[in-house]
Formats: sequence, C-alpha cells, structure tokens
Amino acid sequence: MAQTKKNKLKIIPLGGLGEIGKNITAIEYDNDIIIIDCGMAFPEDEMLGIDIVIPDITYLIKNKDKLRGLFLTHGHEDHIGAIPYVLKKIDIPVYGTRLTMGLVGNKLIEHKLEDVKLNVINPGENVKAGCFKINFIGTNHSIPDSVGFAIETPLGTVIHTGDFKIDYTPINGSVIDLNTFADYGKKGVLIAMSDSTNVERTGYTQSERVVGNKFMDIFKKCNQRIIVATFASNIHRVQQIVNAAVAYNRKVAVSGRSMVNVIKVAQELGYLDTPEDTFININDLKKYKDEEIALITTGSQGEPMSALTRMANSDHKKLEIKEGDMVIISANPIPGNEKTVARVINMLYKKGADVLYDTLEEIHVSGHARQEELKLMLTLLKPKFFMPVHGEYRHLKHHAKLAMELGIKEENIIIAQTGDVVEINSKSAQVNGTVPSGNILVDGLGVGDVGNIVLRDRKHLSENGLIIVVITMDKNTGEVISGPDIISRGFVYVRENVDLIEESRENVNIALNKCKDSGTKDWGTIKNMIKDDLNGFIYDKIQRSPMILPIIMEVKMNQ
Amino acid sequence: MAQTKKNKLKIIPLGGLGEIGKNITAIEYDNDIIIIDCGMAFPEDEMLGIDIVIPDITYLIKNKDKLRGLFLTHGHEDHIGAIPYVLKKIDIPVYGTRLTMGLVGNKLIEHKLEDVKLNVINPGENVKAGCFKINFIGTNHSIPDSVGFAIETPLGTVIHTGDFKIDYTPINGSVIDLNTFADYGKKGVLIAMSDSTNVERTGYTQSERVVGNKFMDIFKKCNQRIIVATFASNIHRVQQIVNAAVAYNRKVAVSGRSMVNVIKVAQELGYLDTPEDTFININDLKKYKDEEIALITTGSQGEPMSALTRMANSDHKKLEIKEGDMVIISANPIPGNEKTVARVINMLYKKGADVLYDTLEEIHVSGHARQEELKLMLTLLKPKFFMPVHGEYRHLKHHAKLAMELGIKEENIIIAQTGDVVEINSKSAQVNGTVPSGNILVDGLGVGDVGNIVLRDRKHLSENGLIIVVITMDKNTGEVISGPDIISRGFVYVRENVDLIEESRENVNIALNKCKDSGTKDWGTIKNMIKDDLNGFIYDKIQRSPMILPIIMEVKMNQ
Repeated sequence: MAQTKKNKLKIIPLGGLGEIGKNITAIEYDNDIIIIDCGMAFPEDEMLGIDIVIPDITYLIKNKDKLRGLFLTHGHEDHIGAIPYVLKKIDIPVYGTRLTMGLVGNKLIEHKLEDVKLNVINPGENVKAGCFKINFIGTNHSIPDSVGFAIETPLGTVIHTGDFKIDYTPINGSVIDLNTFADYGKKGVLIAMSDSTNVERTGYTQSERVVGNKFMDIFKKCNQRIIVATFASNIHRVQQIVNAAVAYNRKVAVSGRSMVNVIKVAQELGYLDTPEDTFININDLKKYKDEEIALITTGSQGEPMSALTRMANSDHKKLEIKEGDMVIISANPIPGNEKTVARVINMLYKKGADVLYDTLEEIHVSGHARQEELKLMLTLLKPKFFMPVHGEYRHLKHHAKLAMELGIKEENIIIAQTGDVVEINSKSAQVNGTVPSGNILVDGLGVGDVGNIVLRDRKHLSENGLIIVVITMDKNTGEVISGPDIISRGFVYVRENVDLIEESRENVNIALNKCKDSGTKDWGTIKNMIKDDLNGFIYDKIQRSPMILPIIMEVKMNQ
Repeated sequence: MAQTKKNKLKIIPLGGLGEIGKNITAIEYDNDIIIIDCGMAFPEDEMLGIDIVIPDITYLIKNKDKLRGLFLTHGHEDHIGAIPYVLKKIDIPVYGTRLTMGLVGNKLIEHKLEDVKLNVINPGENVKAGCFKINFIGTNHSIPDSVGFAIETPLGTVIHTGDFKIDYTPINGSVIDLNTFADYGKKGVLIAMSDSTNVERTGYTQSERVVGNKFMDIFKKCNQRIIVATFASNIHRVQQIVNAAVAYNRKVAVSGRSMVNVIKVAQELGYLDTPEDTFININDLKKYKDEEIALITTGSQGEPMSALTRMANSDHKKLEIKEGDMVIISANPIPGNEKTVARVINMLYKKGADVLYDTLEEIHVSGHARQEELKLMLTLLKPKFFMPVHGEYRHLKHHAKLAMELGIKEENIIIAQTGDVVEINSKSAQVNGTVPSGNILVDGLGVGDVGNIVLRDRKHLSENGLIIVVITMDKNTGEVISGPDIISRGFVYVRENVDLIEESRENVNIALNKCKDSGTKDWGTIKNMIKDDLNGFIYDKIQRSPMILPIIMEVKMNQ
C-alpha cells in the first residue's frame, strides 16, 4: 500500500498528561481513530462548586466518522468516569475486560444509557478496529482485570501499558503478562506509552499480598470491632480483608454506596471468593459481638459525606464509632486530601477508637510501578520512541530522564501535553500542532455551562461576599423613588455592623447626588459611580472588596 | 503561707491543642497569670476569604488585672503572630530572646504599636512575674534563639519545652541546654508540657547540618543559577545557603518580602555571619554570570503570590526562571499545601529548570523532635504530671501513649483541648471546666466580624452562585410596577443560557400570580414563595441550588 508510507500515525492525548486524572488518548491513522480510556478528574480547588471534570472531546466529535472503538485499560474513575458524558456525544463501540465492563455497565444504567453495547474482551485476546489490531495484555494494578494494549498499526506496534505495577504474588489474579510485553519488545515496538505516577519513587512497589499479611496480624490480635476503610474499587484489598475476617471468625458488613455497588458487581462476576454467610447486612450488626464483626467502608480519603466520616461524626444512621473500635485506614491520602484525612483520624481518636494509618503502619501499597519496575518494562519493550503518560509534568519529565538512563535517545522521547498531536513515522516522533482540549466542568446536570467567568465570580463571592444596592428610579425624571436599599451576604455579620451598612447607604446617596448635580442620567454610568465609590469606601474602612452589584429598577411615575 | 495550700495552679491552653497553630497558654495561680506564646493560625479551607485566625482571649481580657507577662518561646508566626491583635486588647509586658523580640518589634511597627516595651531575656536568665519565676532554657528549633521555660510556681516547677528538637551539631548556635532540663528533672518537675508535632515519627530528627552538607554538594557540581526557596524564619538554613554560596564564589540576592525582612533583622542583630559583599541587590543580578549567582527566596509552600511562584509564572518583576536554572525547594509542604507546591514544581520544570525537592533529595530537616528525642526529654524531666501540647488530637494521644511507655501513669497524663482549664495540685492534675476559647477570624481590617453565618453564605455562594430577583411593587395595591428582573452571578454563563434565565423569570411571574390570586400581600410570604418555587424549578432543571435573593422595592404610585 503506497498510501501508508505517506500517512502518519497520530497519538493525541486529550487528557491525563501534565495532570492527574481524565485519561483519554486518541490514536489515529488515516481514516481510523481508536480511543484509549475515557476518564474523569476531580475538580481543582479553584473550581468552586464543580462536581467532576471531563475532557473536551471536540476533536472526536469533529471526527465522528473515523471512530472505531473505545478501549479501556481498567475500571478506575480516572479511566472510565467520563464515558456516560462522552457516549451522549459520540457513538462508539466499547471494549474492555469483564470487571471493567461490569463497572461501566453500572455507570451507564445510572445515566440511563442502557442500550450501549459493551464488548467483554479477555487478556490475551484481540480486537480489530479499522486498520488497528488491539491486543489485550494482562497487568497488575489496584483493581483486578487491568490490561495494557499492544496496538498493531500499519507503521508498527504501539504499546500502552495502562496503569500498572509488577506484582509477582498478586491476589486472586495473574501476574502481569511480562512474557507478552517481552515478545513485543523482541519483535519491535514503534512507540511505548508507560505509567509515570510513581516515577519519583525508587525501588519496587510492594506486593498487594504484604497488606494481607498485615491484616492477618491485626485481626489476630484484636478483640474489638474492626472497621477498615479503603478504595471501593480495590477488590483485592477487599478480598484480603474478607480473608482475615474469615480466618478469625468475623462476619463482614459493608458501608458506603460505592463500596456496596462495587462489591455487588465483583461478587456477581466472581471476583470475590468468599465462603457463604460471610457478608451480613449492616442492620444485623447488633446480633453479633464486637469481636465477631468486621466492617468495610468508604471514606479512606476523609470525604465529608463518606460513611467513615459520618460514623466518626455520629452522623451515620447505622453505626457510630465507639471506645475501643479498631479503625484501619488502608489507603494513602491522594494529594490534596491530607487535611480531610487528618481530620477524620482526629475525630476517630476523640471517639476513643484505635486508628491505624499510613504514618504508623504499612497497611497500604500503591498500584503503580516504581523506578525499578518502570525500568524493567522499558527494558523488555525496547521501544524506538517513548512517550511517558499518566502524570503531572514533573512525572513525565522524570520518566523521560529514566528512559534516557536506559539508553533511549533524547530525540526519541516525547514529553507531550494534553491536546498535543504527536506525529510518528518510522524516522521520527514529534509534536506537530494541537487540537482543542481541556477541562469541561460538570456542575449538577450542567455540563460545560460553568466557565471562567462564572468561576471568577464564585471566587470573588467566596472571598469577600456581596453587597447589592437597589434603587427604583423614575424613568422620565431620574428621581429616586425608592431606596437605595443595601443588602449584603457573606460580607459582615449585619446585626453587629449596622453602622457600616448605614454609612454605605449614605455613600450611595452621595454618589447619586453627584450624578444628579452633574446631570448624569445614563444608568450604566450611575451604576459604575455607585460601585466605584462604595468599593473605595469599604476598602478604606475594612480592607475588603466585596462584589458590589448596583441594580436600578425603572418605573414610570406619570403614565 | 497557708493560702497557697488551698490554691490551685491552673494551666489554660487558649489555642494550639487539638489543632495546628495559634499557640497560647495561660498559667494562673491565685492573682497572677502569665501567658506563654501568642500565635496565629492559617485559615482552614472552609474559612473562605479569611486572612488569618487568632485566639479568643475573652478570658484574658476578663482577668486583665492578673496579667503579669507574655513569654515567647520563639519567633514563628504560630507563636507570635497574634501579638499585635492581642496587645490592642490587653496591656502586658512582653519577654523573649533577642531574635524573637526583633521579629515581634517589626510586627508591632507594621501595626503602629511602637510604644510596647519588649524585654530581651537571654537563655539562662530568668524573670520574676507575680508569684512565678520564669527561667529561659535554650533549645534547638528551625529558628535561632528558641527557648523552653522552667516556671517556678508556689506548687512546683512547670516545664514548657516550646517547639524543640535535639541538634547536637547546630548551626551558629548552642546545643539545646539538656543539662538544665536534667537539673530540673533531678530537683522535681510538677508538670511538663512538651511539643507533640513529630510524635508519630520514629527515630531522631536529623541535624540541620546535614542540609548544609547537601547544599555544599549541590553548589559544588552546579554551574547554573541556583535558586533556593525556604522558610524566611529559618535563619540557620539561610546561613547554610550563604555558606555554600561563599564557598563556591557566588553572590547572594534575596527575594520575597518576608525573606528580605527577616534577613534584615537577622543581620542587624548579628544572627547571620557573612563576609562583606556577599549579598547583592536583586537589581544587580544581571551584572553577574549565572554560575556566580545564588538567590534565596520565599515560596517554598507554593503560595500563589510568593516570589518563587511569580518567577515560575513569568510574573516577577526582577527575575524569571529560565532553562537550566537549579531550583531547590528546601522545605516540606505543610499539610494542605501539597498541591500548590506540586503546581509550582510543574511550572518550574516547564520553564526548563532542574528542581530538587523533598521526594528526590534530603534538602530539608524538621525543627521538631521525633520519638527518641521526646523520650529523652521526658526521661530527663521525669515530671509528675504530663500534658502533651502543640499538636492535633492524634498527636497529643500518641504523645500520651509514648509517655506511658516511659512509665508515667495514665492518670497523671492530661490530654487537654483548647479552652480546657487544667487544675493541678500536688496530688492530681485534671481538666475542671472550660473558659471561652476558639477562632477569631481576621479578614482585612475586620477582626471577628466574620462568623458562621457569613462563612455559610460565602460557602453557598462559592458552590452555587447567586440569583437575585428584583421586583418593584406598589405599596398600596401590591401591583408589580417593574420587574421581575433576574440577575445572576456565579451561577451559569448567562449569554449561553438565556432560556434558563427567561424561564426563571416566568417561574417568578407564576409565583407572583399565585400570590395575587390567593390575596397574599405580606412581602415576606411573597419572597418565600418566589424563593421556594424558583429553587425547585432550578434544581429540577440542572440540579443546582444557587442562593436566591428576592428583593421587593416598594413605591407609592398615587401619592
């Protein structure tokens, strides 16, 4: 095919590079596009009131006709969370492993998208999509059934590791399929994309199994109620909690909506191996003694509305933390959550619980490869080109450095950003232009209707509050008929600052008189004058800058 | 004195226990009160728009006549930051070491409180204040001139360690005066209060000197510009940066207001030992080659307005980060600042700088004692009663556990909270009642005028924005003369949601008609009806709950 020589392979990350979250990457050749993952991100602090963030998929919508398939590496929210939103805009077949599809299916039902076809593919199998052949390769991660992809393209093989670690002794699953990665390495890899999350950490990430051993120790010694908080999707962790409970004759109850949902899916699909009668309803806890109970719950990130926080806060309908409870927080705080986690720990201690958490005990391991594992992967793959993915800029940069240490040439390493178009042929790989990309903010049912202006106003309101000045004026004469009334919110406690409000009203009256004296009748000008004068007055008085909203209502007095 | 037998010693923490920051403790006996430290705290995330938090000192104001002195352990903001605010309410002599007084003096000048008498006391000296004798004992910490106190009271000796670590090889200073602590221990300590910050960490905190050795290594190998961000008050750190610069023939410039201020005070008071001509003006940087320059800057916490962030953001007047710069962030993120620090690191890398930070290199040590040091202190002091201070609840709890391991009886350990009154006699120490305490919020010039209602409104506005409904009505007939007008801020992008705003107006009209039909003329009722209906409409439509403010202006149409 003469045509393929001219054509370029394009890799277009639409999210997940230079940021944590909303992983989505388009791979394009000629008339075919496939998408790897479709995740959401949590809002940054300055995205006030925003529920979740999804990727801008303008480019995919524009190229609807080329879309051949959405391929999912695993079932974490930062890889599948945007699917319902995206599927409302584009029509595309979805492929993933069994557990991933189970979790996606649940999500689609919540969004009333029941008739999407979900294709279950097992590790070791492949899918043809346009000119691409996508091979599913089993990996290890903090959720079962995770995979990487070897994508055969007309120009060569593209490897996407997905999120991975190398766990030689995994729970209920298989060791990452290093042989297949090695095999592709031997045959020749054009470009590899690999997980950069833990690239700053030296050594190896420990096996999930070490956490299980720790659980066994703790359960063995404990004769109190045990409550374990962890990520709902970490089914191997849940399995190990259950194993420890079974070993030491405890029944297991579950709390927290996402924990209940995920465990249900995992059980239905056979991803949890538990003796019958292990799980009990949370309402039946009172039938058992404390030493016969283990509770698995959400809330490992200290989320204010989570089950654990509510238990610690005497705010949970079914359960309250009491003296002597053993609470295990089996997770590390995700950056940004350190303070909420600390707050929950303090609340738990105040209730008299014993608390185990990362600073004190090794009760969590990461799902992401550290430096030595990343070196192993690159050494097996020996890719011609390398593109670090899944990380902030600093992670990508360090992963690039690490690749150079392994002998990959600097000019063959591409540090791309979300929205970059990486063009690859057999000789070179480089960023060539960009496509629209970025954050679409979801607030309630609104998708994308909150942008910078709205956020700027929210920030202003949140920091300084609001003063509304309302005046009713005669349309013809410009006389003030009613007002000025001053209404404030989030500014000062009004009852204790009556004088300040009264002085503000006086200030507005002075501004109105100035306007009158100068014959100013344009309402825009009058409003600006009120705003500027009042702003200056208040800043001088207490060094705050509330949002000031002058409103003029017009009436015709003599009709 | 028969009287002393009946009297109790009271220790009243007014801040700093069960929280990080705003350390202040009152010690009371009979008619005498002394105060240890007077710090501020940074606002919690939910304290929107708040600049700083200071302690509630109602109890001290009420007992003005008993106040004998304010004694400062060291010059960190969480120990001296509230002084200007407190000195506006109470009149009290202030005692501290030379550097501490230098920093307090600066602060008082900013607040136009020049005529406060500041008493410089050296470690090893003592002060009599009422029935108390306060002995200053030198310690090690991340600021020079830190001390602990041995307070001789009619009932026995009270030890307050202040913030401390044990540094056998400190910079420009003396080793913590362990002998004096040991001496008091031998003579008998009634109660000890000790720093709990690092109680969760095993082993010893490393000497400040190890950071200096690391700087020497880095400076030796580097032939680019070096920029070091650290805490302004860590003068030993600054000294070590200067030492490395001098050793490798670099001039030192300084950036960031607090860094410039603190270095000025430290130089004036002789706390920085530098060859002449070491420091240069930041404006003169261009006269030197890159390898001849070291810059010390603020911004180690990624503060958005700090010098380092502005340099990384091309927003600094004097300096911009460029390709090849070596940036050293010589600090750990304070809990809650992890994301802002990460953001600055990413920005620096994007500018092409090399960045060294805690995950990668040992370029910071803590100023607080770890477990083994805390054990040493308690073992020297052998206090009858022990009260862990300076920490969140979990820290106090762990410090109590550690004390028990050393043989202090559980009933002799008091885990107190801010506001608790700890009563001590020779037989027992226990919490007996509370005094008013808590957070006074400072916003601009306003101290305490922002409380829960204002914060609740700010939160509501920040998450959902605002809809104002303005109607002008005839006072007599209740006819709508003008409006309803709908104004929104922080809600949706109005230009793209004209329909929603129009429908909202319609919704208000329907509510108004309902009121009219039912003969409702009470404006409170009408406002509530508008609010409830519109709230329901908007929630159904987009699942958001903006603040809705109906405003009715009344006019008399037929006068």
